[in-house]
Amino acid sequence: MGFQKPPGTQDIMPGNSELWQYVESTARDICRRYRFREIRTPIFEGTELFKRGVGETTDIVEKEMYTFEDRGERSMTLRPEGTAGVVRSYVENKLYGDPDIAKLYYIGPMFRYERAQAGRYRQFHQFGVEAIGSDDPALDAEVIALGYHFYRELGLTGVTVDLNSVGTPAVRAAFREKLLAFLQPMRESLCKDCQARIDRNPLRVLDCKVDQDKFADAPSILDSLDEECEKHFARVRECLDEMSIPYRLNPKLVRGLDYYTHTAFEYKAQGIGAIDTIGGGGRYNGLVAEVGGDDKPGVGLGLGLERTLLLLESQGIKPDLGSGADVYIVALGERAEQAAPGLAQRLRDAGIAAERDYLGRKTKAQFKAAERSGARYAAVLGDDELDRGEISLRPMNGGEQTAVKLSELADTIKKWMTT
Amino acid sequence: MGFQKPPGTQDIMPGNSELWQYVESTARDICRRYRFREIRTPIFEGTELFKRGVGETTDIVEKEMYTFEDRGERSMTLRPEGTAGVVRSYVENKLYGDPDIAKLYYIGPMFRYERAQAGRYRQFHQFGVEAIGSDDPALDAEVIALGYHFYRELGLTGVTVDLNSVGTPAVRAAFREKLLAFLQPMRESLCKDCQARIDRNPLRVLDCKVDQDKFADAPSILDSLDEECEKHFARVRECLDEMSIPYRLNPKLVRGLDYYTHTAFEYKAQGIGAIDTIGGGGRYNGLVAEVGGDDKPGVGLGLGLERTLLLLESQGIKPDLGSGADVYIVALGERAEQAAPGLAQRLRDAGIAAERDYLGRKTKAQFKAAERSGARYAAVLGDDELDRGEISLRPMNGGEQTAVKLSELADTIKKWMTT
Repeated sequence: MGFQKPPGTQDIMPGNSELWQYVESTARDICRRYRFREIRTPIFEGTELFKRGVGETTDIVEKEMYTFEDRGERSMTLRPEGTAGVVRSYVENKLYGDPDIAKLYYIGPMFRYERAQAGRYRQFHQFGVEAIGSDDPALDAEVIALGYHFYRELGLTGVTVDLNSVGTPAVRAAFREKLLAFLQPMRESLCKDCQARIDRNPLRVLDCKVDQDKFADAPSILDSLDEECEKHFARVRECLDEMSIPYRLNPKLVRGLDYYTHTAFEYKAQGIGAIDTIGGGGRYNGLVAEVGGDDKPGVGLGLGLERTLLLLESQGIKPDLGSGADVYIVALGERAEQAAPGLAQRLRDAGIAAERDYLGRKTKAQFKAAERSGARYAAVLGDDELDRGEISLRPMNGGEQTAVKLSELADTIKKWMTT
Repeated sequence: MGFQKPPGTQDIMPGNSELWQYVESTARDICRRYRFREIRTPIFEGTELFKRGVGETTDIVEKEMYTFEDRGERSMTLRPEGTAGVVRSYVENKLYGDPDIAKLYYIGPMFRYERAQAGRYRQFHQFGVEAIGSDDPALDAEVIALGYHFYRELGLTGVTVDLNSVGTPAVRAAFREKLLAFLQPMRESLCKDCQARIDRNPLRVLDCKVDQDKFADAPSILDSLDEECEKHFARVRECLDEMSIPYRLNPKLVRGLDYYTHTAFEYKAQGIGAIDTIGGGGRYNGLVAEVGGDDKPGVGLGLGLERTLLLLESQGIKPDLGSGADVYIVALGERAEQAAPGLAQRLRDAGIAAERDYLGRKTKAQFKAAERSGARYAAVLGDDELDRGEISLRPMNGGEQTAVKLSELADTIKKWMTT
């Protein structure tokens, strides 16, 4: 009898985990440049936070949350997204009292009980940033640039930015009426999901993949913006131009949540199946107040790491992850075997990645293991050499073998590695 | 109304998160040297795994697990420790089929519903390693060395290693009888916890803090080892000596779980309150079979990261985390403000950590913000300078201001930073 991982989760194994580390350290380096700093919030939060911060009527809250009662009979939920927890933390830790705005990033697991499909997991991972405290449209552009820069730094090509303004709640309310007037006559011809959405959130109907061709003549929210929204959006676009970030206006792009204001954007890419959105974000000037804080404006993004990795794979990008050993100690003879752990320790103390055999294998099998380990050098220790205080160092790629004093082995390896 | 983090969890904020990153990257570098590679298993697993892999009668499983039913009516549990998931993954991914042993590490959150106290959280974080597939006692020593090396690399002093052998299940069964003969006569005089433990797991009674002085004459498991156990333990100690890892024999040290065999160890340190154990581990030759795999031997450790951070703090160790900005763009005048986002972008594209003002602040306030950002340089942009295509670069520590061509700003900053 064997146990299995829960449905919709994954084991990230050696060989793959190094790629995750690479993607994450790239994200961290991009955040360093844009001066976003890491925040880590709990894996679960009180359920009410997500009802308020994500929205009672969203699919996430209605159908997809991992909700449970803890032993103190409080309703808790594994975080289905990153923004609500960060905003809760911003408020609870009184970051609004800082003289500077908060520029925060997070990397970590999120949880949604969704139907399993390629590239979609119930435990998935996001890299996200949140900038809270400024209304500056240039900040929207910088957040968009940050995500674009992240993909580019990974070597990905063909990532595009879709951009829209969803206005203010007042603008959206007026647009909603116009849109309903357009949609109501065709209600019966729409897909079931859209029919349900018309009453709850008609803006999302425009996003429907099934009925897309019916909406060519739908009214555009960009024609409904008021002066404030126009001005904000114009400056966002101007900044993106100055930053050389290409984008495509997409008036049908909406983010599902009521507190979104002004800028909404998505990153898209081909090559990872039906799902072409790999990340997105927007401005959420209503959210901080919703979660109980002062009425502070915010803007952020969230990028899916599983999709980023799929994209790296589909574009054949294989970074050199340098995960091989530096040296493999081949021990020949009983006394050499006895001495190997101490020798390995001295190399590791010196910063060298040293591997050795733990299965009492013969010489040939040890050399094969050395190859599998990716070692650059084999350090071959025999009983005779041990008596002379020496060891043979040999490049694994076939170079010449050199006798080295045991006491000088670490220094010699380091010298060889840098030349 | 504001939301609060769940009881027993923490928000790790900027200023503190950099310290976490430092501790984690130290752990990763140590693992690189010892050739352990990262594995990431899901945050939750089927509940049965922990019942089998941790033990039905342990405090963890009986009282402390976050267990819930998912929407498919499967019982899931947030992982209370790291080993069970790693071993499950080892079996499920058939790593036992590899010619080499598996040397795996993990870093991440664990969950136990415990009484809150200083340094103890319900969501806490562990760095752990598991080596599965070899019986070599040198491997036990290497795992002990790895943890010791991790603490030392962080600059911590006074960390000691307690070492014991808990033998094989057969040895332990015989010792249990001897121990019961010693304990039964004093049963009434023991604390309530110990009275309960006598029948379930008398070895753990010896670990009790309250009754410690009553056990001075208790039988020692080290006197009960059979030849195989003696030989294994002697070689572990020999390797530790060869590796210059100091340790203290502690025959009262037990790890709670039935599948532990041979080596058991703990790292201890003063200065973080009543809890002096900061990490520990041991050999678990019975576990892989218990979780449904072949009968493969294993050895591992788990170190508490919260306690590691507390210890860094109590020893006054403040690593230079280099989390400041490289340059702060001070924009004077309206056109300079308009140009600042594009300028920041070009610096960030060049790898420079560039910060600027998002609140339309006056000159003096921008310079104060530059100081708070930890920037090494201020890049002061005025409308006149903009017309000349220039900017003034000034070291924040008071050096001289230099006029630099805008097109050469990134290169100049990089040159200044490396000299």
